[in-house]
Amino acid sequence: MKLIEDLNWRYATKKYSNQTVSDENVALILESIRLTATSLGLQPFKIFQIDQPELRMQLKSAAYNQSQLVDASHVLVFAVWTQVTEEMIDDYLNLIANTRGTSLDTLQGFKKSISGFIGNKNQSDIIKWASNQAYIALGKAMTMAATLRVDSTPMEGFDPAKVNEILDLPTKNLHAAVILTLGYRDAEIDPLANAQKVRRPIHQIFEKI
Amino acid sequence: MKLIEDLNWRYATKKYSNQTVSDENVALILESIRLTATSLGLQPFKIFQIDQPELRMQLKSAAYNQSQLVDASHVLVFAVWTQVTEEMIDDYLNLIANTRGTSLDTLQGFKKSISGFIGNKNQSDIIKWASNQAYIALGKAMTMAATLRVDSTPMEGFDPAKVNEILDLPTKNLHAAVILTLGYRDAEIDPLANAQKVRRPIHQIFEKI
Repeated sequence: MKLIEDLNWRYATKKYSNQTVSDENVALILESIRLTATSLGLQPFKIFQIDQPELRMQLKSAAYNQSQLVDASHVLVFAVWTQVTEEMIDDYLNLIANTRGTSLDTLQGFKKSISGFIGNKNQSDIIKWASNQAYIALGKAMTMAATLRVDSTPMEGFDPAKVNEILDLPTKNLHAAVILTLGYRDAEIDPLANAQKVRRPIHQIFEKI
Repeated sequence: MKLIEDLNWRYATKKYSNQTVSDENVALILESIRLTATSLGLQPFKIFQIDQPELRMQLKSAAYNQSQLVDASHVLVFAVWTQVTEEMIDDYLNLIANTRGTSLDTLQGFKKSISGFIGNKNQSDIIKWASNQAYIALGKAMTMAATLRVDSTPMEGFDPAKVNEILDLPTKNLHAAVILTLGYRDAEIDPLANAQKVRRPIHQIFEKI
């Protein structure tokens, strides 16, 4: 089955070649992120594509010098919301009303649910909740990349406080959750490019009850 | 593009028909979960397929009576590790050594990295970290389901303590992170089946810097 083949093909690329991912493929990967299911449909994240070489160098320093942050064709930082204001909720409800041609009045019950859900959370809870949604998007993006035979590397190994500072995220009420680099493997110098994939057998991670 | 069409086709199904997802399709969805990239490759989760009607009823009670938990063809609970013991790390290193035909000696540096990483975390940190990995798997599973035109509903709206108790997860050092139901939409009674998908435009969730 093609998608299973694609998922077997992908691995966490350590060494990228100089080849660039096409605008068309990047757009498809971004669209898979945009279409991601999120809690309440709020899409509580923003994706930053880091093109400036100086910023990439700084990110590398904040991420244990992982070379992909400089060498990869594309670097995507998944930044998540640190707060959900009433204005953000209203923007979302307007989007629903406009998209579906319904009135805002019919959405007041939904607004109350969202406000109640958000109202119970402190900033750390919001970041955790929003990060979970970003990770769903990460899964979709990696899957889409694999179907396009674009290599990718998910990265959690960085200092979030430093990345926040480098990208000036706190002033935008955002927090760096996870990074994804995109590009093409350099199979000759990446020792993992031809290594057997290591996964536990299904009976160890799955049970019917 | 087929995968984008699939992602546009999917939505959070509220009302399922009686149609059952085939074993073959469930196996493909589980395989997409098994192949998921996870932090350090540890796969810190276990998926429970809940078949017993009595357990499904109890889950429904613990999840604001969401009917999908009883009506869907399949219910998958993503349970995550609450601890990472030295034995679990050793099991993983043995799996790497066996899969790749390398010696355990060459993996001692990696073992030290894992132990250092885990050693800095308390139980709440472990659950958060492991949940992030489960959410990547959730993204993959939903994508795979969509390509098979199997409907799915991700669910966070439940009381984790109750679900833990119902499934006896704490005794297995596991914690309920998220639930995914699978099946086929009943388009005639699900008001969302034909509703326009609501997503913010790409310029609102993406920026190049």
